[in-house]
Amino acid sequence: MKKLEDLQVIISEAVSKLTFPVYPAELYEPISYILSLGGKRMRPALLLLACDLFGGDVDAAIQPALAIEVFHNFTLMHDDIMDNAPLRRGRVTVHERWNNNVGILSGDVMLVQGYKLMMQVEDRLLRPILDIFNTTAVGVCEGQQLDMEFELRNEVDIDEYINMIRLKTAVVLGGALKIGALIGGADTKDAELLSSFGEHLGIAFQLQDDILDVYGDPEKFGKQVGGDIISNKKTYLLIKALELADQQQTKALTDWIALKQFDNTGKVTAVTGIYNALEVRQYAENAMQTYADKAFEALDAINLPDDHKQYLRDFADGLLVREN
Amino acid sequence: MKKLEDLQVIISEAVSKLTFPVYPAELYEPISYILSLGGKRMRPALLLLACDLFGGDVDAAIQPALAIEVFHNFTLMHDDIMDNAPLRRGRVTVHERWNNNVGILSGDVMLVQGYKLMMQVEDRLLRPILDIFNTTAVGVCEGQQLDMEFELRNEVDIDEYINMIRLKTAVVLGGALKIGALIGGADTKDAELLSSFGEHLGIAFQLQDDILDVYGDPEKFGKQVGGDIISNKKTYLLIKALELADQQQTKALTDWIALKQFDNTGKVTAVTGIYNALEVRQYAENAMQTYADKAFEALDAINLPDDHKQYLRDFADGLLVREN
Repeated sequence: MKKLEDLQVIISEAVSKLTFPVYPAELYEPISYILSLGGKRMRPALLLLACDLFGGDVDAAIQPALAIEVFHNFTLMHDDIMDNAPLRRGRVTVHERWNNNVGILSGDVMLVQGYKLMMQVEDRLLRPILDIFNTTAVGVCEGQQLDMEFELRNEVDIDEYINMIRLKTAVVLGGALKIGALIGGADTKDAELLSSFGEHLGIAFQLQDDILDVYGDPEKFGKQVGGDIISNKKTYLLIKALELADQQQTKALTDWIALKQFDNTGKVTAVTGIYNALEVRQYAENAMQTYADKAFEALDAINLPDDHKQYLRDFADGLLVREN
Repeated sequence: MKKLEDLQVIISEAVSKLTFPVYPAELYEPISYILSLGGKRMRPALLLLACDLFGGDVDAAIQPALAIEVFHNFTLMHDDIMDNAPLRRGRVTVHERWNNNVGILSGDVMLVQGYKLMMQVEDRLLRPILDIFNTTAVGVCEGQQLDMEFELRNEVDIDEYINMIRLKTAVVLGGALKIGALIGGADTKDAELLSSFGEHLGIAFQLQDDILDVYGDPEKFGKQVGGDIISNKKTYLLIKALELADQQQTKALTDWIALKQFDNTGKVTAVTGIYNALEVRQYAENAMQTYADKAFEALDAINLPDDHKQYLRDFADGLLVREN
């Protein structure tokens, strides 16, 4: 059985060898640029891992794995325009380095390149795999749309929020695992279970991210603690807090949200104080545990040797206790 | 044999019955909106016609024909953002009615919807048809990129220009015809020939459009005569004129192009005068005829009954002498 780290290396090398036409340069250079910014290549590596777990030939899954990575970076390219983001992984974003039009059009052709790569599978798998890819792509677009809408809305409930993070981030993990499993020779049921494992794990991971943003160890977290509070991001914690808050707490929260100028530390301390009083961390951890349990439940039901499942269990455990 | 007009009606009805999810509304409403703006539905109707010409069941080609129309409208939605266009077919564009982000993201999911529709073909045709669709989609993106680049460049040569209009507009016609032919049962050679017919016809049509913009009958043309001259659009006529012009004519042309404020009629009259002196209309008509000849040459070689080919010939003739 191959290790995830080794598969990440394999896919990183394959990404670095991906070539696109040279003309028109402004259409294709941004694709190579965004792919060169790095990243953990987790999605494609998980696709390869799924293939390997079911005894498949990893080489046969490389192109579809690249498809997932190209697709993921297409969504980043367009999301960065929509979010008006100046930086991506510490480097200027495509629309900043070129312009919005270049970002839109390069992204479009990148999505098509994703389809071209995804089509490099056996004929018998072509339709089922493209069906999964379509579902994944639609999910990610819906998730991004909901994410943008929620930022402008006053009220978002927990179910809507979970559905949004599921669509925006978890569906791709599930899709990548499912595609890899099918290439590896899994039957539909096992592929579906592995997808469910990935999707639920993705939701749990995202909830943990919300928790760590407030309660993480600044040394280990690598981001500014309280960044979500400062930017009024509608996280699980904030949504839950607004749901549970009494009149006075609601006023305090909405006042902090409305404030245009403030001291960062003051705001983080005050909002965290309300979170603590309402014990929203505990709610978030319970929710996270619920989704982790669902992931493990799906994993248990897969027809795979125990050591293979244990590997995935260890991976999930590692993911869900990072620097907490 | 079915008539193109009847197929346009069939596809218009099918477009009006297309439904998309209702949630998230801002993601899917723009798709229904842009599709409701109408248009001649020429591309999907030609796909159906190609299917019918080879004796295929038109019903089996409806979904792929819808795919072509959805894809075409996806490109319009994104092009309108990039061109900053306020109106499309006399109605506000998607990014004007909603905003740029809605236009970007709805367009993205629309491209995916195009793939989903295009996949509704027999298994044995899935790969060849998606290959054509991918090639078409890449071509259109490349064409749009070149079109935007050329508007900012001082020098564009005729070959580059022809290649740009081929990619931006002709490739979709060729692709639609090829897909329809394959669904209709054509062999690869005939499908390829029909595609070549469509692509060359598309180039000829676009060149005629350049000519009509300056020399068309204002009553019949339906657009402002000289619109391309007023907006400094790099058409075949302008590129050829800049290629042939002597020093004095070059100065006159570049002065008109550089002028920020001018009388429209004065500019159109002056530039048309230079075009006339250089006989660029004749060059353009020769080029148009060359591509029309190539289209008819491909058509002649197709293995189809004579009356079927005659129908396409009449269609092409009708297209190329409109209000001239």
